[in-house]
Amino acid sequence: MTKRIAIIGAGPSGLAQLRAFQSAARNGADIPEIVCFEKQSNWGGLWNYTWRTGLDENGEPVHCSMYRYLWTNGPKEGLEFADYSFEEHFGKQIASYPPRAVMFDYIEGRVLKAGVRDWIRFCTVIRHVEYDEATTRFTVTAHDLDDDRMYKEEFDHVIVASGHFSTPNVPEYEGFSTFNGRILHAHDFRDAREFEGKDVLILGSSYSAEDIGSQCWKYGAKTITSCYRSAPMGFEWPDNWDERPALVRIEDRTAVLADGTRKEIDAIILCTGYKHYFPFLPDDLRLKTANRLATADLYKGVVWVHNPRLFYLGMQDQWFTFNMFDAQAWYVRDVILGRIELPCDKQAMMADVREREDREEASDDVKYAIRYQADYVKELIAETDYPSFDVDGACGAFLEWKKHKAEDIMAFRNHSYKSVITGTMAPKHHTPWKDALDDSMEAYLVN
Amino acid sequence: MTKRIAIIGAGPSGLAQLRAFQSAARNGADIPEIVCFEKQSNWGGLWNYTWRTGLDENGEPVHCSMYRYLWTNGPKEGLEFADYSFEEHFGKQIASYPPRAVMFDYIEGRVLKAGVRDWIRFCTVIRHVEYDEATTRFTVTAHDLDDDRMYKEEFDHVIVASGHFSTPNVPEYEGFSTFNGRILHAHDFRDAREFEGKDVLILGSSYSAEDIGSQCWKYGAKTITSCYRSAPMGFEWPDNWDERPALVRIEDRTAVLADGTRKEIDAIILCTGYKHYFPFLPDDLRLKTANRLATADLYKGVVWVHNPRLFYLGMQDQWFTFNMFDAQAWYVRDVILGRIELPCDKQAMMADVREREDREEASDDVKYAIRYQADYVKELIAETDYPSFDVDGACGAFLEWKKHKAEDIMAFRNHSYKSVITGTMAPKHHTPWKDALDDSMEAYLVN
Repeated sequence: MTKRIAIIGAGPSGLAQLRAFQSAARNGADIPEIVCFEKQSNWGGLWNYTWRTGLDENGEPVHCSMYRYLWTNGPKEGLEFADYSFEEHFGKQIASYPPRAVMFDYIEGRVLKAGVRDWIRFCTVIRHVEYDEATTRFTVTAHDLDDDRMYKEEFDHVIVASGHFSTPNVPEYEGFSTFNGRILHAHDFRDAREFEGKDVLILGSSYSAEDIGSQCWKYGAKTITSCYRSAPMGFEWPDNWDERPALVRIEDRTAVLADGTRKEIDAIILCTGYKHYFPFLPDDLRLKTANRLATADLYKGVVWVHNPRLFYLGMQDQWFTFNMFDAQAWYVRDVILGRIELPCDKQAMMADVREREDREEASDDVKYAIRYQADYVKELIAETDYPSFDVDGACGAFLEWKKHKAEDIMAFRNHSYKSVITGTMAPKHHTPWKDALDDSMEAYLVN
Repeated sequence: MTKRIAIIGAGPSGLAQLRAFQSAARNGADIPEIVCFEKQSNWGGLWNYTWRTGLDENGEPVHCSMYRYLWTNGPKEGLEFADYSFEEHFGKQIASYPPRAVMFDYIEGRVLKAGVRDWIRFCTVIRHVEYDEATTRFTVTAHDLDDDRMYKEEFDHVIVASGHFSTPNVPEYEGFSTFNGRILHAHDFRDAREFEGKDVLILGSSYSAEDIGSQCWKYGAKTITSCYRSAPMGFEWPDNWDERPALVRIEDRTAVLADGTRKEIDAIILCTGYKHYFPFLPDDLRLKTANRLATADLYKGVVWVHNPRLFYLGMQDQWFTFNMFDAQAWYVRDVILGRIELPCDKQAMMADVREREDREEASDDVKYAIRYQADYVKELIAETDYPSFDVDGACGAFLEWKKHKAEDIMAFRNHSYKSVITGTMAPKHHTPWKDALDDSMEAYLVN
């Protein structure tokens, strides 16, 4: 096979794509030449932690939105690789909410075993992609940051796997420009101890707000005030956490909220979400979508309907993560290998997108949404040789997790669940989350 | 004239270029079509302040390296526009070290008067530039961030005026990744009050270190520890400011310095300089240079020797600023208008670069460097109709300024100097700098 494939990004979704092709090759398939471009000096994407914020050592936007002390905010039983269990990696079953270092080790373990590191060009950022109708190939302009050298190469397919939780959405409120404390987006949050003894204002009511607020609380913030625009998170918060309606403005060091509350604050953390952002793609190739389960313009959630030689991985909002990326990567691989045939008719692909959108919009219920995405994972898995697993079981873990969060938001991570890959129950972690201040892998694996 | 000119950036140097062309047109010249692309929503470049850090509202790197309470760190008499004096703008002479808001107003005043705002496409970032040997034109790929629309246009010349104090150089030291306080580069420094009562470690010994340290001191930092690698700044610092040799590592919250000093710190501010960074330019057009007075590969400091249809403004390290940008912009304008002929021979242009390099390297003396750049400004001005002014007089103000800094680093801004444009003496400011906590234009102009 003489095809050449460009994969943009070596985070969880890009690595899934490498593993998918490697798996086919190991089973005897003739696979294309794969080139994976990674901006960072190591793989892991968001899971590749750095203390840096803003711009990185090469002047590029820092990809990492991760912070110290982060533990997964959903059970690992919902994201386990079907072809590489936690037990295979760690030699034993481990507790259900691993910290970042443990997760990084797990992600890396699979691709080390697969031996795909040589397919990756590190410290290389994609500057521009163009499609040529005449040759039906893409010209990719890459920038080797180590050598400060820009070059072009041609590819038959491009797979965009650069994620959508790295470019912050940063709103402005009246009074921000004269506030004397720190204002940061969740993307730049690194160490909760920096906010010890502080009165912290958190804007937002989704996962970043919940988890960064919880981190600050755990590591000794004096008070947390979190503000929502549409609906509160509604958990039973600790006494020094006050959940309130939206911020109206800042007056000097005082936050003025929509319900009239006035609260003096030291720092403002904007947990206001992320943007899908692809500055390297021209208009005819660039995905523009809301952060939702049914992305715009992607047939089967991965094929760019306006040019089906281009693919996107992991651009959905996510309940399922790693195993969904796998399901997508195996699907994309099989399209490229000619094992799956796409509709010739663009209208048919767009009808698929519309059907997904309509089905997502049919209910606002969270359980519905989780099952919706479970069905999507099952749908893709059924079309490839990705190891089948008990997706409904993983769904069950998510539903349990929701219940445990509602019971006690500061204790849900003390629960454990059964692996749907190996069938074994996770051990209970040795220390309740709120008392486990050391987030190292060594500490976590003591169980 | 049917030529089209692209100017990248509407900061001080880009605006100088607009003013240069507008001035020629007002004097009856036939000028090309000018399109200035500006990433931000307003002009002023670095002087366009924002509270934002990291990535901006459009997901682009924040251009601003400016902070609240910044006053110019050199006398305004060294940077005054020869064609637009401070007296013309403010209706009176003003004190010598204006705060940011005053400077912004002055910069804006000239281009408002010139009426060039319509030449600027705001919120438009340049993604890519290519040169076509066959057509001898540049294809510029621009991204309209408001409409999220990318488009290409052709130009006969490109003038890069995007500055070189926006992309931070951010080194890593042992222990950074486990330090529990804030680590930031000068680029992300905004409000000194955030460091009130804190023990601040500053890395660096150039202007950012001097000025950000002074800001933190002025607004109540508990202690400042500043570290140099090659040589100390060597001023007589206040009692709570300790200047020491280089940082070796961080251990928990303790900075360990090369002389064995151990100091517990709350925050680390990296005043470690900036990079020339042009991610939108391919190898054959991209300037790679140290931050020095004689830039690499630029004939007369502005013409790209490898393709003289491309120009760079303000890429030198700077004693002279606004009036040097003017001298450069008028020169570039006259090359484009055919009033100045460039050497046909690339070797001749490269010899010019080497001569400048050799001459810069002939002495390490600061006075020599100031005079070197004064000579450069005079050289360019002599070739165009930019209003001639007493460059040696401006030089004199710089030399006085150096003396005043050596006398008292926290009081040099209380001095005043004579304008070399209007010949009038600046008034003494109404309040010593260290006691003037309000940096508003209203407060400054009370004199």
